[in-house]
Amino acid sequence: MTDAPETAAEDRDELEGLYGATDAVVREVKKGIAETKPDVVTALIEPLHAADMADLFEHLTPDERDILVTLVGADLDPEFFTHLDETVREDVIEVLDTERLAEVVNELETDDAVDLIEGLDASEQVELLNAVAPAERALYEEALRYPEDSAGRLMDREAATVPSYWNIGQTIDYMRSDADLPSNFYDIYIVGPTYRPVGLVPVSRLLRTERPVGIGDIMDTELKLIPATMDQEDVAFLFRQYGLVSAPVVDDHGRLVGVITVDDVVDVIEEEHQEDMLKLGGVSEDDFYDAVIDTTRSRFSWLLINLGTAILASMVIALFDAAIDQVVALAVLMPIVASMGGNAGTQTLTVAVRALAVKELTPTNAMRIVGKETLVGGINGVLFAALMGFVAWFWFESVQIGGVIAAAMVINLFVAGLAGTMIPLTLDRFGIDPAVASSVVLTTLTDVVGFLSFLGLAALVLL
Amino acid sequence: MTDAPETAAEDRDELEGLYGATDAVVREVKKGIAETKPDVVTALIEPLHAADMADLFEHLTPDERDILVTLVGADLDPEFFTHLDETVREDVIEVLDTERLAEVVNELETDDAVDLIEGLDASEQVELLNAVAPAERALYEEALRYPEDSAGRLMDREAATVPSYWNIGQTIDYMRSDADLPSNFYDIYIVGPTYRPVGLVPVSRLLRTERPVGIGDIMDTELKLIPATMDQEDVAFLFRQYGLVSAPVVDDHGRLVGVITVDDVVDVIEEEHQEDMLKLGGVSEDDFYDAVIDTTRSRFSWLLINLGTAILASMVIALFDAAIDQVVALAVLMPIVASMGGNAGTQTLTVAVRALAVKELTPTNAMRIVGKETLVGGINGVLFAALMGFVAWFWFESVQIGGVIAAAMVINLFVAGLAGTMIPLTLDRFGIDPAVASSVVLTTLTDVVGFLSFLGLAALVLL
Repeated sequence: MTDAPETAAEDRDELEGLYGATDAVVREVKKGIAETKPDVVTALIEPLHAADMADLFEHLTPDERDILVTLVGADLDPEFFTHLDETVREDVIEVLDTERLAEVVNELETDDAVDLIEGLDASEQVELLNAVAPAERALYEEALRYPEDSAGRLMDREAATVPSYWNIGQTIDYMRSDADLPSNFYDIYIVGPTYRPVGLVPVSRLLRTERPVGIGDIMDTELKLIPATMDQEDVAFLFRQYGLVSAPVVDDHGRLVGVITVDDVVDVIEEEHQEDMLKLGGVSEDDFYDAVIDTTRSRFSWLLINLGTAILASMVIALFDAAIDQVVALAVLMPIVASMGGNAGTQTLTVAVRALAVKELTPTNAMRIVGKETLVGGINGVLFAALMGFVAWFWFESVQIGGVIAAAMVINLFVAGLAGTMIPLTLDRFGIDPAVASSVVLTTLTDVVGFLSFLGLAALVLL
Repeated sequence: MTDAPETAAEDRDELEGLYGATDAVVREVKKGIAETKPDVVTALIEPLHAADMADLFEHLTPDERDILVTLVGADLDPEFFTHLDETVREDVIEVLDTERLAEVVNELETDDAVDLIEGLDASEQVELLNAVAPAERALYEEALRYPEDSAGRLMDREAATVPSYWNIGQTIDYMRSDADLPSNFYDIYIVGPTYRPVGLVPVSRLLRTERPVGIGDIMDTELKLIPATMDQEDVAFLFRQYGLVSAPVVDDHGRLVGVITVDDVVDVIEEEHQEDMLKLGGVSEDDFYDAVIDTTRSRFSWLLINLGTAILASMVIALFDAAIDQVVALAVLMPIVASMGGNAGTQTLTVAVRALAVKELTPTNAMRIVGKETLVGGINGVLFAALMGFVAWFWFESVQIGGVIAAAMVINLFVAGLAGTMIPLTLDRFGIDPAVASSVVLTTLTDVVGFLSFLGLAALVLL
């Protein structure tokens, strides 16, 4: 982005008329609830899209939510539940009885229904599954047998399929007659006798072809067949890489069991990115709508680890208490070396973690990137060494102190560049998510190396 | 994600056969180039999808790229250029002559062509535009008049449109006869006499409707009309919010000027997320493929700002050099308070920046979130105060030092929670991108407050 980012207020102006859950609407609804005016509230929310209704709910306090669910619960669009944040959804679902929830689930597409069911706890799941029709129940139970976050959970079980010996006319007539197709689809799959996909035809191509042409003659045969057990992150990668709008999902025998569409993948991309970003910031999961106590608990463990590493760094300082006792300037300057190492390392780390996530950083270019980042760190180390060396020299009127901080700066920024790439690569090699663990390992290292090199050199040179 | 993340190697196994530019292929190609075996190289890259070819190029060194372009430049799929990273694309384009580049541009969809042209520098743009056909040239120049990163740059100029008085039969016959339609489309737009969109019909619905039915009878009339000047970030928001697959773009007079499709939006979502993540890590733009010198320069300015803030924090320490001189334990413990504040603040900050980016944090819930985060910070502050207070007490055998660090911890974690939300909200209010500037402001504050509260209290209590 080269242009200046917009404020939230400008953003809202531009979205005027295109987005339903504006701040004005949220405020009016809150007022209506506070003043117990159900007619006003109903009139306000009546025109809202299901996704906007979900945003509205997310902006209410838990009490306001309960009142609103009681008021409009029976009229809520089933789609509404698919758009809700998981924490808020739990709150809303608690107010509904099982029968109403079963109705909601029945009206959803299978993938959305499964998404809703998997968020419930075990006993609620059993209760709900008992309340839905047996045929649907079997479908959901089958879907829930696939691993969490797999293609099998993400896919819709309905697919538009035709045999390869049909022509366009037959295909169109079938599409017009059969009610059991998905409500909307972008590709038609051509399947062999054992229901193995052999090709696809985008609907717009079908539409533009004359009736007598054979469907096998216009189909694309280069299919990306997605195994039902594939992780959703890899599914998202394939959609991005090949600009897919839909993709067939197959079982172990290569038989078509469902279809994943791009709208679900957009949600996955969003989710995965947010996870990576939050993890890098030391937040284990999205707790934006969580209660204070849950948020405090989830943040605590990360801070505890950081306390441990901070104490470790302090123990390094304690090794040199004699030096600090003699030259108090060392205590003043030492955080600068650690801080610069941490920042330079974080830059490198962020680039490396992102590149790993989008599969740009792989074994064939890993060493080249490590070399480059170490060189970048080293060069910036020399530049900042010169700068900080002069600052310290004039500040404390000591050329030795200037020299010591300069040398420590070069060492720490060089280490930061090297570690900023090596740490995520190594964690990834051992199957540890680099987004979670990299930053704590890195800052521990840059703190320890920063204090050790600066105070150690000072002890050698000054005492 | 609850399951353990996979290593890059496991990932690759799962993508076996679905992804072309595997490490094995990259290694073989590099070997083929090194051993000057053009036949081997051509055979290896022949089956690659354009997107995989782009990945392959990104994994080569600049010299290898030049050799490969010279070898296969004339056969490169025009799509290949749309998938290349911008830095690598500049390298590749430099090797091609203008005529070949004009051919490439002619074969691309208008949105992709514009994307390629806007990456060139001014003189190259002029040269290229002179080499393409006048009709195309006018199209591109018009597109380039829209602001960078706007809907007008993102849209495809071709749209499938029909008048509202047609029936399905007429529409299908027209689709079959007209060659000037986009190569693939998902929605058909129904336009009024002045080319204003009045409705849309998904192609699968068109397919499933009998020929005599009027198109106006099956169209959706709730359209999200996107102004051509809308920022691409807002476009992406609308696609995500409403699960859109395509959307009509209109000019100031409400006339249809183009269509944005979800595949372009997936790229935008990817791009915007990466920018947010990199900015939070202090990296101004994606420099993964940049040369060492460019990367060093782009990282330098951020580190310079950080040096300034680190020196500021040091000046706070220098205020208390007399206290440190008397009690050297203060120098050992002070980084712990600052570090814990920085980490707790970063957690809050990351959540807030993300919530702002996806429009979950708005004026109507801002104060509630600030209150929650301050409370979370305060509670964790009390918990860690108790913990660290005991550690310091036993470590330095001084109950006063334990008490001082405990009090400083509460203060700094409380401030971290408050500032972690207030800083991004305030920056956003003033139109400054919170992802860029928040973290430097935050860590400066937590460093200063950490040192000031700890050393200040120590000076009061201990001296």
